[in-house]
Amino acid sequence: MIITVTLNPAIDVTYRLPRLRVGEVHRVAEVTSRLGGKGVNVARVLHQLGEPTHAVGLADHDFAEALARELPATFLPVLEEVRRTLVVVAESTTSLWEPGRQAAAGADLRLLDLLTDRIPAATAVVVSGSLAPGVPTDLPARIARLATAAGVPVLLDLDDAALAAAVGTGAVLTPNEDEAARLLGRPLDDPAAAVAALATRHGGPVVLTRGHHGLVAYADGSCWEVTPPAGVTGNPTGAGDAAAAGLARGLANGRPWPEILRDAAALGAAAVVTPVAGEIDPDAYSSFLADVRVSRIDHEED
Amino acid sequence: MIITVTLNPAIDVTYRLPRLRVGEVHRVAEVTSRLGGKGVNVARVLHQLGEPTHAVGLADHDFAEALARELPATFLPVLEEVRRTLVVVAESTTSLWEPGRQAAAGADLRLLDLLTDRIPAATAVVVSGSLAPGVPTDLPARIARLATAAGVPVLLDLDDAALAAAVGTGAVLTPNEDEAARLLGRPLDDPAAAVAALATRHGGPVVLTRGHHGLVAYADGSCWEVTPPAGVTGNPTGAGDAAAAGLARGLANGRPWPEILRDAAALGAAAVVTPVAGEIDPDAYSSFLADVRVSRIDHEED
Repeated sequence: MIITVTLNPAIDVTYRLPRLRVGEVHRVAEVTSRLGGKGVNVARVLHQLGEPTHAVGLADHDFAEALARELPATFLPVLEEVRRTLVVVAESTTSLWEPGRQAAAGADLRLLDLLTDRIPAATAVVVSGSLAPGVPTDLPARIARLATAAGVPVLLDLDDAALAAAVGTGAVLTPNEDEAARLLGRPLDDPAAAVAALATRHGGPVVLTRGHHGLVAYADGSCWEVTPPAGVTGNPTGAGDAAAAGLARGLANGRPWPEILRDAAALGAAAVVTPVAGEIDPDAYSSFLADVRVSRIDHEED
Repeated sequence: MIITVTLNPAIDVTYRLPRLRVGEVHRVAEVTSRLGGKGVNVARVLHQLGEPTHAVGLADHDFAEALARELPATFLPVLEEVRRTLVVVAESTTSLWEPGRQAAAGADLRLLDLLTDRIPAATAVVVSGSLAPGVPTDLPARIARLATAAGVPVLLDLDDAALAAAVGTGAVLTPNEDEAARLLGRPLDDPAAAVAALATRHGGPVVLTRGHHGLVAYADGSCWEVTPPAGVTGNPTGAGDAAAAGLARGLANGRPWPEILRDAAALGAAAVVTPVAGEIDPDAYSSFLADVRVSRIDHEED
């Protein structure tokens, strides 16, 4: 069973209307909403793939109850409220992201208690996304150490300070190019060299996510470049979460890295062709698996 | 005790951000939200004035519980969810109004049962705002007849079909100029003549609300023009609800019409100078009372 951890969930709301004009009043014809957050999306994809999964995290009471009706999930009701991310789809797409709400004091310790109980039965742990205000920056790193101590593989899809605090844990890290450049303190001229340098500093695998350019990974002394199928267009939101689900499944099942990376890239592309985050197109996934190119590359560490 | 009835409540959410650009992603710095809907705003103003009030309506479970913590309130949990009205305050103000959600079958009968129990103890009844989908158009008219049969004065602040269905009930009607013109089927060239014609057709008082131009009322065979204090600027949202609170309080206490109308106009203006709907500025209210001009006008019925 793969545990996903979401420390700043969101209710993803979509408004559809013919046009959006600043300064005007609009009656919205169509409202849809979905329980989200990056770890929740990872759990949804794993669930869709038939992989036993359990979504864990911080939320409010309503979110915790509603998500548990959709997926195996245990969310601690320690947030005042779950933030909304509003996407207004009109001639173009306008997004308004609410800030996360404050976590109650002690929320981190309650979550670590919950994970201490559950991790020994897990096959992998994924911590994805930002942290609600009040969550200590090093909580994902502490979760990673808990998993590593129990011999359970762990993947951290984080940004900013939480990512920086996780360097050195040995967990699989999945920065994007901006995050990797910030961590290294220099532009990413040679992605392979950068990933190798980061992985060496970190003491564990690093998978650089480059959107439609694919992945560059350094693991077990080898560097891999992963090129997704060409010409895939659609909704890139959630593609990173589908790729993280693929990485987690591969780690959980002890697959070799080239196979894990192929699966992750195919799942990411199969998420792009579906309109909502947290879902993949199974037929596209099957066909994309054959189209992904995984090549071992030489690199110079700099 | 004045009963207010809200048949399509809303959660009024405000986002504040430096600028809003169509097609871009925005992180919202400040989110505020408030339980609203026109009848709720009327009840808030009455409550602020120290007038015993009870807010009744249709909502979901969370809204019903949360409102009852703020005000004396009984909302039946018969809506799937309460709609949100989003106001994005940036360089200018952009509004996005969600549609009301479907009311459960039988919601109208449950509400009528509740009101049948409560109306005999009421001093006035106010039904304000739109109807959630699934609420029969004539429900406000049926509530008005229930109140009238119990000898309780009733005010209906409605629009469209619900307003049309209420003509003939003898309740106090408060159309705005557009609504009055639609009811009459012709432009409102002479507001006094139009109000008199409507009141005659309706068989009860009509108070035409004209924003910062004030009120024109026809009641008990007389026509009144009410001019608010000049130069009042601010947030007009909720001014109509504050005026409705004034009308309801006057009716409940059996005050003469010129006094009722003066109070309503002063409360409306005192709502404009406060930033949120459902509140008035008490000092502004006191000073505005002396500044409102109420004049009896001759009219020709046409």
